[in-house]
Amino acid sequence: MAATRLTWREMAAGVWCAEVAEQSSPRLLDLAAGPPAREALATMPAAGFPLAGERTVSEQIAGRVVLRFPLRPDERLYGLGLQFRTLDARNSVRGLRMDHYGGQDNGRTHAPCPLYVSSGGYAVLVDAARTVTVHAGTAVRLDSTHPPRVLDRNRDADWTPNPVSDAVEIALSGPSVRVLVFGGPTPLDAVRRYVLYSGGGCLPPRWGLGFWHRVPLKFSDADVRREVADFREHGFPLEVLGLEPGWQSHSYPCTYQWDPERYPEPETLCRELLAQGIRLNLWENPYVSPEAEIHDALRPLAGSHAVWCGLVPDYALPEAREVLGRQHDREHLAIGVSGYKIDEVDGIDAWLWPDHATFPSGHTGEEVRQTYGLWLQKLLTELFRRRNRRTYGLVRGTNAGAAGYPYVVYSDCYDHREFIAGLCNSGFLGVLWTPEVRGAGSAEEWLRRIQSVCFSPLAMINAWADGTKPWSFPEVEHAVREAIGLRRRLLPYLYSAFARYHFDGTPPFRAMALEDPALEALDQYMMGDSLLVAPMFAGQQSRQVLLPPGRWADFYNGELVADAAEVTVTPGLERIPLFVRDGGILPLATDDDPTALEVRHYGRGEGTFVLYDDDGETYDYEQGAYNLTELRVTGDRDATTVPVRQSAPATYRRFEWRFMTQT
Amino acid sequence: MAATRLTWREMAAGVWCAEVAEQSSPRLLDLAAGPPAREALATMPAAGFPLAGERTVSEQIAGRVVLRFPLRPDERLYGLGLQFRTLDARNSVRGLRMDHYGGQDNGRTHAPCPLYVSSGGYAVLVDAARTVTVHAGTAVRLDSTHPPRVLDRNRDADWTPNPVSDAVEIALSGPSVRVLVFGGPTPLDAVRRYVLYSGGGCLPPRWGLGFWHRVPLKFSDADVRREVADFREHGFPLEVLGLEPGWQSHSYPCTYQWDPERYPEPETLCRELLAQGIRLNLWENPYVSPEAEIHDALRPLAGSHAVWCGLVPDYALPEAREVLGRQHDREHLAIGVSGYKIDEVDGIDAWLWPDHATFPSGHTGEEVRQTYGLWLQKLLTELFRRRNRRTYGLVRGTNAGAAGYPYVVYSDCYDHREFIAGLCNSGFLGVLWTPEVRGAGSAEEWLRRIQSVCFSPLAMINAWADGTKPWSFPEVEHAVREAIGLRRRLLPYLYSAFARYHFDGTPPFRAMALEDPALEALDQYMMGDSLLVAPMFAGQQSRQVLLPPGRWADFYNGELVADAAEVTVTPGLERIPLFVRDGGILPLATDDDPTALEVRHYGRGEGTFVLYDDDGETYDYEQGAYNLTELRVTGDRDATTVPVRQSAPATYRRFEWRFMTQT
Repeated sequence: MAATRLTWREMAAGVWCAEVAEQSSPRLLDLAAGPPAREALATMPAAGFPLAGERTVSEQIAGRVVLRFPLRPDERLYGLGLQFRTLDARNSVRGLRMDHYGGQDNGRTHAPCPLYVSSGGYAVLVDAARTVTVHAGTAVRLDSTHPPRVLDRNRDADWTPNPVSDAVEIALSGPSVRVLVFGGPTPLDAVRRYVLYSGGGCLPPRWGLGFWHRVPLKFSDADVRREVADFREHGFPLEVLGLEPGWQSHSYPCTYQWDPERYPEPETLCRELLAQGIRLNLWENPYVSPEAEIHDALRPLAGSHAVWCGLVPDYALPEAREVLGRQHDREHLAIGVSGYKIDEVDGIDAWLWPDHATFPSGHTGEEVRQTYGLWLQKLLTELFRRRNRRTYGLVRGTNAGAAGYPYVVYSDCYDHREFIAGLCNSGFLGVLWTPEVRGAGSAEEWLRRIQSVCFSPLAMINAWADGTKPWSFPEVEHAVREAIGLRRRLLPYLYSAFARYHFDGTPPFRAMALEDPALEALDQYMMGDSLLVAPMFAGQQSRQVLLPPGRWADFYNGELVADAAEVTVTPGLERIPLFVRDGGILPLATDDDPTALEVRHYGRGEGTFVLYDDDGETYDYEQGAYNLTELRVTGDRDATTVPVRQSAPATYRRFEWRFMTQT
Repeated sequence: MAATRLTWREMAAGVWCAEVAEQSSPRLLDLAAGPPAREALATMPAAGFPLAGERTVSEQIAGRVVLRFPLRPDERLYGLGLQFRTLDARNSVRGLRMDHYGGQDNGRTHAPCPLYVSSGGYAVLVDAARTVTVHAGTAVRLDSTHPPRVLDRNRDADWTPNPVSDAVEIALSGPSVRVLVFGGPTPLDAVRRYVLYSGGGCLPPRWGLGFWHRVPLKFSDADVRREVADFREHGFPLEVLGLEPGWQSHSYPCTYQWDPERYPEPETLCRELLAQGIRLNLWENPYVSPEAEIHDALRPLAGSHAVWCGLVPDYALPEAREVLGRQHDREHLAIGVSGYKIDEVDGIDAWLWPDHATFPSGHTGEEVRQTYGLWLQKLLTELFRRRNRRTYGLVRGTNAGAAGYPYVVYSDCYDHREFIAGLCNSGFLGVLWTPEVRGAGSAEEWLRRIQSVCFSPLAMINAWADGTKPWSFPEVEHAVREAIGLRRRLLPYLYSAFARYHFDGTPPFRAMALEDPALEALDQYMMGDSLLVAPMFAGQQSRQVLLPPGRWADFYNGELVADAAEVTVTPGLERIPLFVRDGGILPLATDDDPTALEVRHYGRGEGTFVLYDDDGETYDYEQGAYNLTELRVTGDRDATTVPVRQSAPATYRRFEWRFMTQT
């Protein structure tokens, strides 16, 4: 039972792996969207193994494999499951388990990724599809070589219930596990290595970054047509319209078949909408109704337990994926459906199968729970890929290694601040998150939420229950239109940020701590490389914004803000505070000419932006069919536009430079 | 991997046991205070095995042992850990794990007893010191022989996320387990069998049922003397004074030695207080300071991890118990200390040792976590028993089988309603619970909390942090004195109720559902056999009270209330609503003569009360040294007082009958 030193093997540049016993149970990275992006990893800064190797050990204890990694007194630990209230997980124990977030950052969450990113500039991934318990600097061993100082709570004012531990201890059931360590030198570099090793981040279709609207539960095709006409009349754009459970003949459990009364001619509807530039996204949960045509084929391929009387197909089996895939392809993809919202794959315990459920693949109930959302993302993404069409959708449960799947995580919770904290934390984990808007208690809240969601991976109103529209609060309709308009203008910038996610591993949305570990904010974040977003919350007239080192300019007027670590802003109701790094370059779409860009430069410094474009719809970019244009300002506002790669028809032909900051 | 039918063996009258594999890991009932009370069990009503035996099965699945028990559609499931918000645990999953209650009834609690009591009149105990996950009617198997009706959420208004399951499924790590089933016929009978099989409930010393007051953290002996004088001046009784961490030379972690500055002469203080009828109770937590004299002796007997830099001794080792016991006996018991408050044995995860910690006895960290409070109760109870002195104290974490230990559970939470819900739920589990009073936001709240705690197993103000006194809110001082006085008057009744707990297994405090499964209240409860307590909460002018079948009388004036299932009461600030069953007999102490009882009869019916008395201090009652007096009303208010056993000096000699209800 003695602790054994782990043996590390470099798998790719700055990525190390150690195995404890031979792992028979499923690994998370085996479900990644693609193989490691070795070439991109090789271009990263050199990184040595970031830990004291002799202090990385494993031990077999009472049916558990226990890992121990060294921890310095000043390290902060980010990640460890998608959190909504905290940034630094140090001094907590996280039982990382797939679940609906229940109001506590205890490891039960929509993305229970067993990954931590250290402020010291490295990351550790426990690559196992099991519940992983991480003692993030809480377990202090008696034989520690760096014992904490003994304090007396009666006497010592700095007594704390968490003495400083020199280790992270991790436990999971079973004897085997694979662990990966990602080098830095910075925390962001470690995240990039993790994303690249997972195959790179997803690149959504361009339309996916437009505006989404989900209609109420029992809408019919006639209701949908009316809704679309309403959007047009109110002058609101709409790229994706989402149907909720009522599109199916039965749901909870599901048939995946169109309801013959509400949608007698889905193909006609799809075609009509596509002609207007609107794509359909379909809600589903994975539990198969006895009424489904595919039920009998899936029955022998399902787990021991039902969910809401529906089958839980074992999608680790290719034949099960084939049954669902064929049906989806024929009934949905073939008529133009653009993607899915995968609901109910996260929890809660009392609804899903137990951990002791059995599945025909031999995976345990626990393993299937941790990966069910991954399997469905894999299945559905591959379905679209076969048609060389990109998809973009939503999923309520995901896990580590899924950065390459074009799915955005959401939750039934609805706290605006928690939603923004989720957005900040998502970046550590290779996960996308949307603070979707449903309803609001006031016009102010409505507007503040819309402003936030327009600066997220998925700008969506989910009106499934409330029937809200963008113009539901007439007093802020104009400002809502502004916010949505701003997202559309920033689309070239955002699309390029996603390209960076894919090619370089840099998350398009991320916490300030990845800019500067000293910035512990959970209410502001980076979108792309240059834009700092500081949402306002209902009731706020002003707020503090933490600024990373360097000077920052106001996005709206280009004015440089005080050279300070912190500023107070009073933006008024119409605006969400946005700041651009000195030297930042933002390419914005123009209203009239889709081939023209307004290229904004902020501040006084030099800067470069690599503009990415491609056909926006297919996977041809993977074969090299994309363009890169370097937008560069040097010296005294010397602006150049340099095409560095042209392998696809150009999306943009005109570049109108605009220097936002007065000299 | 097929399910195997369990083989049941009758262990005592109406108690059956099944074993899956040979259980090497510790069992909870092995830590019970005494052997099964077979004679008492033999006098209970006959009970057949309450379940369909062929549907009680076990299965070995991926390192877990899984049990399945049948469940009828209308059964409610009580127990499953000490809960604070819910009564019926059906349709929930409980991961029963020792922890500080965190605001959710999810199984993490101060008494994570793996026991459920069915409204159908039986109970099931998983007798394992491990985290036990109970799917309380949530897991529906595809091969169920009683499949629930398939509903469609879009169409069926009675759709529910929890279709009716025909089974309880229970999983725990490891291959082995022992399960016990307790027969009825009623749910209360099942609880009684469980308590009796655990050795019977505890009988506290009589002084333990008096009034308790814990003084602030850093009180010195001079402060204590002043506090006692203050109590006398204000005319408040005081049976037990509790010292908090500052009595020790170091605490968090602990030395268990008197602080030489604050308590230079503890023996003198103890003697002085005892002369005034006041006993000392000492706070402690079990983590041993490097400054403790016993540290070096315990160091080789401790677990692998520290808590607050203190040792976690392995009290499953007799030699470890001996070290602590000798020190406690010499330093505390020998000078008259009456008992302990055992703090911090419950959680939280980030403070305690991990489940993978190792202990010299071979018990796992998880097993030690589930039982640490039990070991300490056992150790300390036995210490007093050796001196033939009963003790009474507090413990923050306990488990199944501990009914015989004279310890009352408490929590750092402080919601009055949750505290009362805890009192209701405690009765299912063989656990005592105190809604201790600390502070209050208003005089009304103060009074309402005091009224509640006076109708609980431990009537205590815990002023460790707030320094409150009974008279802290002068405007209600009189009413507070009334409430405490009422508790003192009811002491003969309450002491007899505890004797019933010991001899008959009936919990002295219990939920209405044990009277009548239809009564799902969590804000009222039974104290003893005849008294229904319905606490008022701050802000309430009136409340509803659910009444079990039969007529009930107002305690204060004897008036029969409407013959209804529910009444509304508006008791005013001074009174806590109390109802007495028709025919109920309550022996009350009198103010002037300690040998006299006022024996009250309520309503119009016949009734009997068995009055118990003994020396109130020693274990001589276990050798038969106690008295029983039958107080009986027959026919037309024909009152008799029949001594049925006289084996000890009589406490009471005068019985003054009083018929409270006017004819």
